[in-house]
Amino acid sequence: MRDVILHDYFRSSAAYRVRIGLNLKGVAYESCKVDLAAGAQKDETYKALNPQGFVPMLEIDGHRLTQSLAILDYLDATRGDPPFVPDDPADRSHVLAMATIIACDIHPLNNLRILKYLKGKLELSEDTKDEWYRHWVREGFDALEKLAAPRAGTFLFGDAPTLADICLVPQLYNARRFSVPIHDYPHLRRAGETACAHPAFAAAHPDLQEQH
Amino acid sequence: MRDVILHDYFRSSAAYRVRIGLNLKGVAYESCKVDLAAGAQKDETYKALNPQGFVPMLEIDGHRLTQSLAILDYLDATRGDPPFVPDDPADRSHVLAMATIIACDIHPLNNLRILKYLKGKLELSEDTKDEWYRHWVREGFDALEKLAAPRAGTFLFGDAPTLADICLVPQLYNARRFSVPIHDYPHLRRAGETACAHPAFAAAHPDLQEQH
Repeated sequence: MRDVILHDYFRSSAAYRVRIGLNLKGVAYESCKVDLAAGAQKDETYKALNPQGFVPMLEIDGHRLTQSLAILDYLDATRGDPPFVPDDPADRSHVLAMATIIACDIHPLNNLRILKYLKGKLELSEDTKDEWYRHWVREGFDALEKLAAPRAGTFLFGDAPTLADICLVPQLYNARRFSVPIHDYPHLRRAGETACAHPAFAAAHPDLQEQH
Repeated sequence: MRDVILHDYFRSSAAYRVRIGLNLKGVAYESCKVDLAAGAQKDETYKALNPQGFVPMLEIDGHRLTQSLAILDYLDATRGDPPFVPDDPADRSHVLAMATIIACDIHPLNNLRILKYLKGKLELSEDTKDEWYRHWVREGFDALEKLAAPRAGTFLFGDAPTLADICLVPQLYNARRFSVPIHDYPHLRRAGETACAHPAFAAAHPDLQEQH
């Protein structure tokens, strides 16, 4: 058994971010599946470990860490290269702004618990739910494309992956699932394509994780 | 005219966070009002400065910074004490996890553009919208209270304010506006009360900003 355990679900965007981060840092880990589709995140056993009942949760160095951005910050502070954010404070803030457009302005509106609320509690149609999904992705991607443009290279900030790409790639995967066209976002598309060819990103893809 | 300009709106939670951060660091700033209620964030003049058309946006040291968490990170990296996050990587991750429960799991679901979509596009009733609001606040506060409990002091992490409190205080203000009871959250309530008495938090309160 390995020392680092990721409580994981293949389709969770937030868990996907942490898988990319662990791979980038070269941290070997054991994946422990929490089946969100089956409601396993609500089991008392899991909630005893993580009261919020979300994935990801990372057991590492004797700590139990939650919230993907907070986990990635820990990995960046305690593991070696490559860094997830640039050193210069303004560059760092720029990368964090791109990451939080995804992590705060897109993803929270579109994750499973929200879509369930829209369809269950609010009894909205599948089409209305899908339009909700696409609306917030488009709004966020519009902003992100403009913010990224001046400094983007093969990735969102220059030619090396940062926290912004770690957040982007799972969001692009989800955009594709919900048929959001991305041809209007050349910088996002390019970063996504570069990431596809990067082993740390490729190995974190949902299709390569245990699903059932 | 001062060198630091905050594009601000009194009721924006994200702008409120940045006001607290600027005050904690003792950075004097000029507030430039963007009237969200009147749709001023959609003006082309403002969108030329900030393509996402959100507040806050901070002009500082020759940079234009967006996204509250990214702005606060910049202030913490470039200005002196007090630090917004602890030095120890695990403590830092804990504080960031608390901050992102608010900044990613509560606030994005309940800000103005979402409430407008619920009432406008989805034609939901005022009651249904308010129940949506309260639902996500309760879910997030439940998790935050449990996460905070082991390490909370007079603030959410020990006895000095951190990024977690900077995010909490605007969220408590909004919870009050939407009549979410907070008696079940003793640690959140205590941190909120301590912050009320702290000059940097008190001076950032919406009631003390230009409103019209």
